[in-house]
Amino acid sequence: AIAGTASAQIKPEEAIKWRQSGYGFMAWNMARIKMNVEGAAYNKEEVVKAANAIQAIANSGMGALYLPGTDTGTGWEKTRAKPELWTNKETLGKVATAFNKEANEMAKVAAAGDAAAAKDQFGKLAATCKGCHDEFKIKQ
Amino acid sequence: AIAGTASAQIKPEEAIKWRQSGYGFMAWNMARIKMNVEGAAYNKEEVVKAANAIQAIANSGMGALYLPGTDTGTGWEKTRAKPELWTNKETLGKVATAFNKEANEMAKVAAAGDAAAAKDQFGKLAATCKGCHDEFKIKQ
Ligand code: HEC
Ligand code: HEC
Repeated sequence: AIAGTASAQIKPEEAIKWRQSGYGFMAWNMARIKMNVEGAAYNKEEVVKAANAIQAIANSGMGALYLPGTDTGTGWEKTRAKPELWTNKETLGKVATAFNKEANEMAKVAAAGDAAAAKDQFGKLAATCKGCHDEFKIKQ
Repeated sequence: AIAGTASAQIKPEEAIKWRQSGYGFMAWNMARIKMNVEGAAYNKEEVVKAANAIQAIANSGMGALYLPGTDTGTGWEKTRAKPELWTNKETLGKVATAFNKEANEMAKVAAAGDAAAAKDQFGKLAATCKGCHDEFKIKQ
């Protein structure tokens, strides 16, 4: 959590834009890990860069961007966070912990450089994105 | 650079959205480093998380998102990349290298934990964001 004074300086529309940005950037990095593990050629360096970006975003403390008053509003687009995100803390804790664990593991596996292991770990990580979305994101 | 087959799979509007997301997420992290170095209390852990996210994004190879055909188009919003970004490679190389250097240094300084040094390095890093924007980003 961030300090009261600090969060007081953040405008709701900024918080929404920033969290959408974090997810949007992870989406690129997931897409390129996917291309590498499903494509003909595996580029270790590409997967490492992508996995490191996802890991740093996962560990950045994005929970601070779900400030009170940001359950409605528009960042880059109208927020798609479900109201449950502010009330069902137990489930949120579970899906967020699973995501962090698999994101950290993805960075480790990427650094080791084995394509088959990366493919396997990519599947586990992608499942944790979906695990959160199923509970807390309004479908497009 | 990414492989021809991989980049061929990326839609222009996705590439634009993804690069805007990378910058948007860095903006949050710059904002919270600023709050910490200019505010009353310095939270080392917050600054480390923010600096690590910026570093990983800086090293992620975002240049791959400036595909041919993405000089116009809309991601989260209409692209604000100037046409010069595709033609003035020499200046782009310089500003991008300066940014990477200061982002890597910011992560090191954050880990060391000295607030005054972090403030100084934050200023240097912010100047490299501006250095690129002055040349390559259309003003709001
Ligand atoms: C702990 C919950 C959680 C996790 C984990 C999570 N997301 Fe999301 N995601 C959300 C929420 C909530 C939103 C809506 C944010 C908003 O609009 O305010 C969202 C929005 C998005 C968006 C924006 C566009 C859209 O489709 O709505 C993308 C893309 C996305 N997530 C991808 C990912 C990827 C890829 C991962 C994993 C690498 C991931 N997310 C992990 C909760 C999560
Ligand atoms: C190498 C060039 C470059 C560097 C370095 C750079 N930017 Fe940008 N930035 C751009 C370009 C180009 C765009 C427009 C992208 C688009 O719309 O397609 C942009 C867009 C943005 C946006 C989107 C909204 C807006 O104001 O247009 C933000 C926020 C932003 N940058 C912040 C930052 C921050 C913070 C840093 C440093 C930590 C940074 N940028 C470093 C080139 C750069």
